[in-house]
Amino acid sequence: MDTLERFQVVPAERVRLQIESTLVAWGMPREMAAASAGVMVETDLRGIDSHGLAMLPSYEDRRRTGRLAMAPAVRVVREAPVTALVDGGGGLGHYPSILAMDLAVAKARRMGVATVAVRNSNHYGAAGAYALRAAEAGLIGITGTGSRTRAVVPTRAREGMFATNPIAFAAPARRNRPFVLDMATSTVAVGKVTLCWLNDRPVPTGWVVDENGAPVTDAATAREYCSRRPDGGLTPLGGLPEMASHKGYGLAAMIEIMSTMLAGGIYGGTAATNPRARATPYDDLGHFFMAVDPAAFRPAGDFADDLDAMMDALRAAPPVDPAKPVLVPGDPEWASYDRRRSEGIPLPAKLVGQVRGIAERAGVAFLLD
Amino acid sequence: MDTLERFQVVPAERVRLQIESTLVAWGMPREMAAASAGVMVETDLRGIDSHGLAMLPSYEDRRRTGRLAMAPAVRVVREAPVTALVDGGGGLGHYPSILAMDLAVAKARRMGVATVAVRNSNHYGAAGAYALRAAEAGLIGITGTGSRTRAVVPTRAREGMFATNPIAFAAPARRNRPFVLDMATSTVAVGKVTLCWLNDRPVPTGWVVDENGAPVTDAATAREYCSRRPDGGLTPLGGLPEMASHKGYGLAAMIEIMSTMLAGGIYGGTAATNPRARATPYDDLGHFFMAVDPAAFRPAGDFADDLDAMMDALRAAPPVDPAKPVLVPGDPEWASYDRRRSEGIPLPAKLVGQVRGIAERAGVAFLLD
Repeated sequence: MDTLERFQVVPAERVRLQIESTLVAWGMPREMAAASAGVMVETDLRGIDSHGLAMLPSYEDRRRTGRLAMAPAVRVVREAPVTALVDGGGGLGHYPSILAMDLAVAKARRMGVATVAVRNSNHYGAAGAYALRAAEAGLIGITGTGSRTRAVVPTRAREGMFATNPIAFAAPARRNRPFVLDMATSTVAVGKVTLCWLNDRPVPTGWVVDENGAPVTDAATAREYCSRRPDGGLTPLGGLPEMASHKGYGLAAMIEIMSTMLAGGIYGGTAATNPRARATPYDDLGHFFMAVDPAAFRPAGDFADDLDAMMDALRAAPPVDPAKPVLVPGDPEWASYDRRRSEGIPLPAKLVGQVRGIAERAGVAFLLD
Repeated sequence: MDTLERFQVVPAERVRLQIESTLVAWGMPREMAAASAGVMVETDLRGIDSHGLAMLPSYEDRRRTGRLAMAPAVRVVREAPVTALVDGGGGLGHYPSILAMDLAVAKARRMGVATVAVRNSNHYGAAGAYALRAAEAGLIGITGTGSRTRAVVPTRAREGMFATNPIAFAAPARRNRPFVLDMATSTVAVGKVTLCWLNDRPVPTGWVVDENGAPVTDAATAREYCSRRPDGGLTPLGGLPEMASHKGYGLAAMIEIMSTMLAGGIYGGTAATNPRARATPYDDLGHFFMAVDPAAFRPAGDFADDLDAMMDALRAAPPVDPAKPVLVPGDPEWASYDRRRSEGIPLPAKLVGQVRGIAERAGVAFLLD
């Protein structure tokens, strides 16, 4: 583990029950709570520790401050053969996002491709969960989301204009487990900066910049720029201008357009001034979900076979260090999944303590002992 | 101009005629030649100098070596309401790509979204040309392409496994000209390394790596790694592993899947071993084209208004250097387009000399004097 913290290892099923019971105690209908808990624990199993159980304290805070509807009316507000618009009712993003991707998959199975947008939503967890859902159904899945946070600083700018706006892409192979790319369009997510701080290490040059565009390497200062301070923040993928940070910035803007603008959500950079921003106490985030059926383009199976061949060729590429073979996107997450499925999920002691407090306040049993 | 070379400024129409007459003399039907010449000169106007007229010497070489069909049978080989597969017949990519994007736009206008794949194609020029074509029709356009070149080195690998696999994304605003992101998924394209060499400048650390994953900064050596040598090469976006080059590598693989694997083209990394690779003297490249109609999701115009608001907010973001305002993807290309439309296209003297030779060999008038 890349941290100094102590860990407690807990079986996935107990983590899932802890999340579900807490959400139900908060007033969430059981079907929605089960959806959120399912996505979150799968995310922990896949090793994406920042987007699973670790989000519960933030969700508690959002609920407490009225930013999150607990029993939202999730509705398909517009639908056609290959498109749909889902309104998330101001609740957590997991439930409407599963609905949206499943709708995209069903439509793409009939027609070849489909796109479903979600508006009036909130945090949807790890983007990869939804892309993978399509791949496990035999289709290519693509998704992305914006968020109100303004942590990522466009090339040349003094302050953040985007969240870490992730994109996820998954595709089904035959012999291999699905290809899964799940990435923030920033160089790193805030969690990586926090890890530097926890481990008393400097932040690598190019992860975080100050209001003058200069790299910030002191971890404590870098954390300030990524959270409390409006100026400075995370760099777009590429890092510094000379390393083509304008490409990462462009990708962040692309994801904002496909998620926020297509669905009609609220963009953080204009939330205060946009006359079309609907009056709502909620974050009104947008997400998008695309499904593409390879069988609409090629004889069934040929796509999966060619993808297998590419994945095999990549893993067989000569590595710089024989101890570190070339990986295919998704490989580290599959390795984590297998390990944690059998051994349990290692939870930082600090997080376990937070969840104990959450369970007490919600009046539910604490299950992570 | 970021180079030591001398330039000759030529009106766009003469560049277009030079390209078209040369392609016709090579045996290309006039309609196809006009399509290629149109895309190429628009690319020069937009300032993407590497992908316009400057490709003509490479096309001459591909024709001479039999890699390029000059009178290809371009056919829609499979079609459904929101999907299609186009066979490029082994010719240049411009003509089948215009056909494919126009087909995607027409289908998306009726149904909301559509995806068209092209196989058995060759170089299609600047990806942005096709994405912009959709945006100018009022739709979101997305495209990407693979290529047989193996210049981009995956994270941890010793040798290149991908071409610079570009992605382009364009979206229509109301008051602003379209948002256009057009980027290689490598940190830089080979042309940027060549510019360093022309200008006797070192290559920035992180653009090019050797067979040990170490940065190459000597420009002449870097050029070797990017062209003649099979080992080493360009880095994926991000640059070095610490700067998240695995994300650029993942994006390159995503584009390969969406273009090569979806269409059934040939992937450079398995061309020699894949039993599904069709026997052909041609490169058999794949491209993909997606169109999304915002009006399928929101009341007409709301998307464009929100995109305007975002573009305005980005340009109004406080800049680090007041002399360098924050740009929106596409801004530099639109500025070049306006300038070159009125003033002409500056062509390097060396390129003009190359084209003179090409015109002589093709037996057509030389028009760039």
